[in-house]
This record gives sequence, structure tokens and C-alpha cells, in this order.
Amino acid sequence: MDVLVPFAASRPKTRLAGVLGPDERAAFAAEMRRDVCSAVESAGASPTVLSTDPIESEWPVVVDDRPLTEAVNDRLEPPLAVVMADLALATPEALSRLLGTEGDVVLAPGLGGGTNALAVRTPGFRVDYHGASIADHRRIAADVGTATMVDSFRLAVDVDEADDLAEVLLHGEGRAARWLRDAGIELETTGGRVTVSRSTPR
Amino acid sequence: MDVLVPFAASRPKTRLAGVLGPDERAAFAAEMRRDVCSAVESAGASPTVLSTDPIESEWPVVVDDRPLTEAVNDRLEPPLAVVMADLALATPEALSRLLGTEGDVVLAPGLGGGTNALAVRTPGFRVDYHGASIADHRRIAADVGTATMVDSFRLAVDVDEADDLAEVLLHGEGRAARWLRDAGIELETTGGRVTVSRSTPR
Repeated sequence: MDVLVPFAASRPKTRLAGVLGPDERAAFAAEMRRDVCSAVESAGASPTVLSTDPIESEWPVVVDDRPLTEAVNDRLEPPLAVVMADLALATPEALSRLLGTEGDVVLAPGLGGGTNALAVRTPGFRVDYHGASIADHRRIAADVGTATMVDSFRLAVDVDEADDLAEVLLHGEGRAARWLRDAGIELETTGGRVTVSRSTPR
Repeated sequence: MDVLVPFAASRPKTRLAGVLGPDERAAFAAEMRRDVCSAVESAGASPTVLSTDPIESEWPVVVDDRPLTEAVNDRLEPPLAVVMADLALATPEALSRLLGTEGDVVLAPGLGGGTNALAVRTPGFRVDYHGASIADHRRIAADVGTATMVDSFRLAVDVDEADDLAEVLLHGEGRAARWLRDAGIELETTGGRVTVSRSTPR
């Protein structure tokens, strides 16, 4: 299946500003994108990066600087999957579950109401990434066919906030996890959930 | 399989204090516990609540006021599963994946390095719930046999913080989700992940 991998190339991952500088955020975002494309390919599918700006990539890139919803809908000819470029925990196995689950529209929820990945096999479905998109996508999918949910932690964690970096350090198996370790980002155990700190100055 | 459901009965869910009062937190925690026990039963297993204090419950209860790690290890005779009482998104399907996955020790990670559920089929395994327990549990499991991970969003979300309530409202299918709605807790869409606000005063 063809898989679009949307990537925000200009000023990526601003919510990581407390931990990573601007150039670092760009480098880390690129590593996550490579991990995702590589996992998609290992799952037997064909990734194409949908980037807001021209980028260098070993996978095909299409550039579209419109908002995400418009850019995706303009290319949404089934069968097609859309997998966000910041799913640093995604493995070939997790993506195979998404791509191998039957149903007209298969949805993988993200933390906080997002839709981190979806696979579309029926015409008429349109994305709407604003707000709690997973609820909207379930509704839109039910209007045009069946909506099936994939229950995956690895697809649920998109990396937006500092705490998400702890998940990458704990569970990531690719370049993004290695990049974080090389940058001196370390797990920090507090009373509740584990978070991160930095051992080296920026 | 027998399933222990650890439950902290005294002053539960203090990190929800910004949204719920003390009595409300106790009531909500009890609803989550009932949802978990009910889902365990629907998955074909037998829940026993491991409570720090005596509670009323339609399922069997054993009381042990020692720290979680000691209380669980004292009862860890395989085959046995341990499923936290605050997994408000757990469904029979998600728990069936945990209980049906082969392997000496099967682990379901929680957000922030926790171990939200595990199934033990081999002697010698011991729990250690301090810190990033999922990493420790993988290591301990590998020492005594095989460690297998279950990739489940529904088992990864334990409800500790206000943002977790958004996940319950979005994806919960049981009494806990209904309780939140009745308490006036609503989704609040911001720029990033969805969170919650309260429409009625406490």
C-alpha cells in the first residue's frame, strides 16, 4: 500500500524547545521521519514523504505547503495510508497491524485525541486533523463504510512534548532513540511517570 | 487465568486533585476498578482485587497494606496476571491479547515507563514497580525466560493525571467514562493535545 508520511519541515517540534535547540529539533525530527519511513518500508509498503518544504530524503518526497488536512485530502485516493512522521516508536510489526487490519477505514489513535495513522480502502473518506480528530475520523469513516480501530501503544505516541522523549528512550529502536542518547538526553525518574533531563549543555 | 488487580484504596489519585475533590477521586477510582474487573471477567479470567484497605466489591478482595511490589511478589505464583485498577480504557479484547499472548512473561508498558499489566507463566519472576519498571521487568523476565511485549494503547494509559481523563472521555466505554461525563468533565481542545475542563463547580 502507498503510505503518505506528512512532515512539517519548517520550525518542527517547537514544543520540544525546553530540551532541544532549533537545529537540534530539526535534526531529531528528520531522524524520526527516517525511522518511520524505514519501518513503513519494512512492513512491505511504499512511503512518500508529504513535506511542507523541500527536504533531502532517500524516499520520494512531494512538497505541499498547505495545511495538513488540505494537503492530505488532495491525495487521498484509496487504497492509501497516512502515517505521521513523528511516530518514533513505530515498528514494522505495529505498522503491519495497521496495514493488515481489514476494514474500509482503519484508525490508530494518538495521545490526546489525535489520529496518528490511518488506512483508507474506500472512496469518500476525508481527513480533518483539527481538534480531537480521532472522534471526527470515526464519524466520517462510519458515514462512508466501516471504522476499525487499531489498539497500538507504538502508534499512539507521537513525539511532541518533552515527556514523549522518555517513551523514545524507553521503547525506541531506531535512529531517533540513538540521536537522543548521543545528545545527552537521559531518563529522569520522579515520583510519577518517568521524564527526561539533559546531561550536556546545549 | 487468575488476575490480581492492585488498588490503592487510601487517598487514591491525588494527581487528579486539580479537577476532582477527594470524595470524587475515591468514587472515580472505584468506577475504574469495576471497569477493569469487569473487562478481566469478560476476557475469561478471574479478577481478585489486591487492596491496601478493606473495600466493598462484587469481586473477591484481598487486603495487604504493604507497598505494591511486596504485596504482589508475595502472591506471584504462576500462572498469574497483574492488571492495574486504573486502566480505564482496558477492554476485554485488549486484555485477551495480554492473556492470550504466549511467553514466559508478557508485559504491557504504561505511559512513562510503568508496567500496567503483565502475565507470568514461569517461576522465578519477581516484580519491581519502582521507577521505570518496564525496563526492569524486561530484564528480570529475560533472566528467567522470555520477555514478550504487548503493544496496546488501551493498556498503556493508566489514569493518573488530568490529561489522562481526556483519553477516558475519548476512548472509555465503561462506567468511569460515564462517571466523568456526569461530573461535568468535558474535552477541551487546545492547540496541541486535547485536555479536559469542568463545566460544573465542584
